[in-house]
Amino acid sequence: MSCKMVRFGKNYATILKLYSVVNNKVFAKTIATSSCCKIKQEVAKLLNLKAQLGAEDVVPQKFTLKTPKGTRDYNPQQMTIRNNVLQKIVAVFKRHGAECIDTPVFELKDVLTGKYGEDSKLIYDLKDQGGEILSLRYDLTVPLARYLAMNKINTLKRYHIAKVYRRDNPAMTKGRYREFYQCDFDIAGQYDPMVPDAECLKAVTEILNSLDIGKYVLKVNHRRLLDGMFEACGVPNDKFRSTCSTVDKLDKSPWEEVRTEMINEKGVSPEAADRIGEYVRLNGGAELVDKLLKDEKLSKVSAAIEGLEGIKLLLEYCVLFGIQDKILFDLSLARGLDYYTGVIYEAVLTEPIKIGNEEQTVGSIAGGGRYDNLVGMFDSKNKQVPCVGVSIGVERIFSVLEAKLAAGEMRVRTNEVDVYVISAQKNFLEERMKICNELWNSGIKAEQSYKKNPKMLTQLQHCEDNGIPLAVVLGESELKRGIVKIRNVVSRQEDEVPREKLIDELKARIATLNKIEMNGY
Amino acid sequence: MSCKMVRFGKNYATILKLYSVVNNKVFAKTIATSSCCKIKQEVAKLLNLKAQLGAEDVVPQKFTLKTPKGTRDYNPQQMTIRNNVLQKIVAVFKRHGAECIDTPVFELKDVLTGKYGEDSKLIYDLKDQGGEILSLRYDLTVPLARYLAMNKINTLKRYHIAKVYRRDNPAMTKGRYREFYQCDFDIAGQYDPMVPDAECLKAVTEILNSLDIGKYVLKVNHRRLLDGMFEACGVPNDKFRSTCSTVDKLDKSPWEEVRTEMINEKGVSPEAADRIGEYVRLNGGAELVDKLLKDEKLSKVSAAIEGLEGIKLLLEYCVLFGIQDKILFDLSLARGLDYYTGVIYEAVLTEPIKIGNEEQTVGSIAGGGRYDNLVGMFDSKNKQVPCVGVSIGVERIFSVLEAKLAAGEMRVRTNEVDVYVISAQKNFLEERMKICNELWNSGIKAEQSYKKNPKMLTQLQHCEDNGIPLAVVLGESELKRGIVKIRNVVSRQEDEVPREKLIDELKARIATLNKIEMNGY
Repeated sequence: MSCKMVRFGKNYATILKLYSVVNNKVFAKTIATSSCCKIKQEVAKLLNLKAQLGAEDVVPQKFTLKTPKGTRDYNPQQMTIRNNVLQKIVAVFKRHGAECIDTPVFELKDVLTGKYGEDSKLIYDLKDQGGEILSLRYDLTVPLARYLAMNKINTLKRYHIAKVYRRDNPAMTKGRYREFYQCDFDIAGQYDPMVPDAECLKAVTEILNSLDIGKYVLKVNHRRLLDGMFEACGVPNDKFRSTCSTVDKLDKSPWEEVRTEMINEKGVSPEAADRIGEYVRLNGGAELVDKLLKDEKLSKVSAAIEGLEGIKLLLEYCVLFGIQDKILFDLSLARGLDYYTGVIYEAVLTEPIKIGNEEQTVGSIAGGGRYDNLVGMFDSKNKQVPCVGVSIGVERIFSVLEAKLAAGEMRVRTNEVDVYVISAQKNFLEERMKICNELWNSGIKAEQSYKKNPKMLTQLQHCEDNGIPLAVVLGESELKRGIVKIRNVVSRQEDEVPREKLIDELKARIATLNKIEMNGY
Repeated sequence: MSCKMVRFGKNYATILKLYSVVNNKVFAKTIATSSCCKIKQEVAKLLNLKAQLGAEDVVPQKFTLKTPKGTRDYNPQQMTIRNNVLQKIVAVFKRHGAECIDTPVFELKDVLTGKYGEDSKLIYDLKDQGGEILSLRYDLTVPLARYLAMNKINTLKRYHIAKVYRRDNPAMTKGRYREFYQCDFDIAGQYDPMVPDAECLKAVTEILNSLDIGKYVLKVNHRRLLDGMFEACGVPNDKFRSTCSTVDKLDKSPWEEVRTEMINEKGVSPEAADRIGEYVRLNGGAELVDKLLKDEKLSKVSAAIEGLEGIKLLLEYCVLFGIQDKILFDLSLARGLDYYTGVIYEAVLTEPIKIGNEEQTVGSIAGGGRYDNLVGMFDSKNKQVPCVGVSIGVERIFSVLEAKLAAGEMRVRTNEVDVYVISAQKNFLEERMKICNELWNSGIKAEQSYKKNPKMLTQLQHCEDNGIPLAVVLGESELKRGIVKIRNVVSRQEDEVPREKLIDELKARIATLNKIEMNGY
């Protein structure tokens, strides 16, 4: 018995008391009646009591109740914002004819290996529980390349919206998480130069315009031009990629720091670094391209010419797409990822966003470029599928909108209910349920209280708290006359309507309502 | 040098040749000019060649290109089906006033521990990479309970659509995966008996009706009735849960097998098992409830009475909601999960689905019930939030629709493009781009070829292959006259339209088009 006691922990004393009481009873009765059956019954009762005690003996929560580091829940308000943003983005992707795909949240670890350079350390691995070795996806681009190669697809215009995972140092107030959304739009296929590339830029402008989050500029550059520039400045070929990564830091650090890193960490000569410094401060439009095409050093390097011709064509197409005033050719734009091979671009908000009394600098909110060699890395014959794409940084957009919400500068409605069914008196649950049923069957979004006899005031309060515009008010005397009342929640105006015309009347009113714009998915 | 050679692998010979050629040159020139600068230049060229060689020396793919076991990609057709199904489900959730939440894909392992009984072995753990110990979510119910307890929320009507993860034996043709979608609708809050429970059933019928996948029945039972039934049959209290798990197998196994398991594995007496056997073959409606309320054995057990009264009330509410003909009170329904405390239900398709010449049995496609004690497991003071909810088995629905698609019984369009911009002659890319730009700016879904000079036939074929209904056809002579042509792709009818009226005319035609029903998210 002592062995069993251990499991009951703190209730040891109680159990002991029960056992002793019941056992005494059992023994007493055994002597009196010698009834084996009775003993069994008593034991059953005892076991019953024991089981009940066990069930109540819940061990209290020992660990801190939280989501994992760098992650968060989305509450209904946040989801409403999120779904609204995603809906606008998807509308643009669809306007450009994109199809939708999805891939698993994890991949074979081998698929991700060797694709992200130094950042590979940020990949989440799954535990080896027998079977395959898996990792959570780090972005949506490598899974796309794996998908294209695996299915031998040569052309695809697809969008993909999904969460990706990076064991990074989270800065959650700025929208930097370990689990976060990516919204990618990519065009795969062997096409004529810059035609799909220009469409990606056009799509980004449509998205940023529709989200209405402030002024922005779309910086563009070309990896071949960067390579040519490094060559012209005297950087050894094997240092191009690492020098490029250093240039990429120019959006956060001043030139002096970047220069020091180039010289001390990347082994670039001071002279080469200074020459690079001259170029990366340049930005402009078509006139800059023309000037650089005549540049003494660059014009001797074929890669530079190739990049500049590419940018020139891209800028021409941007004029046709009416977005030339949003585009800035910027030689300091480098982008971190190794796999880009052609045009690269990044959208940056040019003004800090005012939220309450504070200003928030958002920076980059979209980026992408051309990567012609990634799909081939998955093909046994190294067969390439050229790709160009863009990723929208929705988390930063969410965080701006959430800050606006928190500052009371924005309102969202988290449900879409049009009609609340109210009863003014007791015992009207059945009538309410019948009306709700009619409304739902007619496709009307409707709710009622789950209480049998809710208070009138509580019901009206529910409508106001949740922005429900209309209420159906049921009363005994009206129902006897074949009448129900429709109440406008805001104006508090109530109108009598014949019971059989209720649905038609509600539908007419809903159609004319000024719907609040922000609705969930 | 030999050390460096290793990295070049198969190109050893080529490199060696290059080194020797360039070195000879270098030495020769060194002697001739003694120019240090020249040497540097030659070395740079050499390094350049080396780097180029290295870049081409891509190691071919060594591992099988696949998605992890039990997972799959969704191609555009599958995504279109999936998004269409989810859209219909969400429409019903919203009609019932549900809000949307989301939680991270992984939780602290402690959150999941002790919630799933035997199935805990199916949980995916993440590798310990330093920091918190994490697991992928197994369902959406435990994360909801964690969310409610963590945020001290007492009332919530929410839906949640997300992927969950189980290291189960996959049967992918039947829609059983290791990564799969759950669509959950739950009502949390202290309300009057069976009011929210009945609404869950109503929502399920609305969803299954709108998905139009065949006849179904909604089986209902009550955990208190099951407990009372086990008690009445003489099953010891501590064997209720395990006996319940065994009863749950009745939808797949015959009674004889279940009986054997009860007796041999769960330690139920043969007499008790036989008594259970009598009850679990019963099913019916309100009349069965009344009969059982008078049952000699059950009427003596308070838990049974409690369960029967619950079912009785639920059936009354189902009449008010007009779904009584879909409901079947079935004493064999048990449901596996431990955490249910009240009503439980399961929707089952009653006819196999015909796909081509084959019949596919689908079985259960939705299920749920009341779980009043789960939230309290996360609260330090064991504070309860009663909940009831339902989960829609969308993967099974997807697999039925995908099979129909594969059998040619269904067509889906994977893009929503309304207008394709075509040019009949060479060098019209710029004109096409200008027109596309106008269309996009007017919100029209439009595409063009990414080739400079695509063939007319290829462009028309693209429209037909992708179900694009309209084409704008540009020609030099028409443009000179200020005219463009609009082509109806199906009828092949072409009409001339003044260039400046193009947008209005297209909008009018798009509005009257018979849109194909199945469109992506």
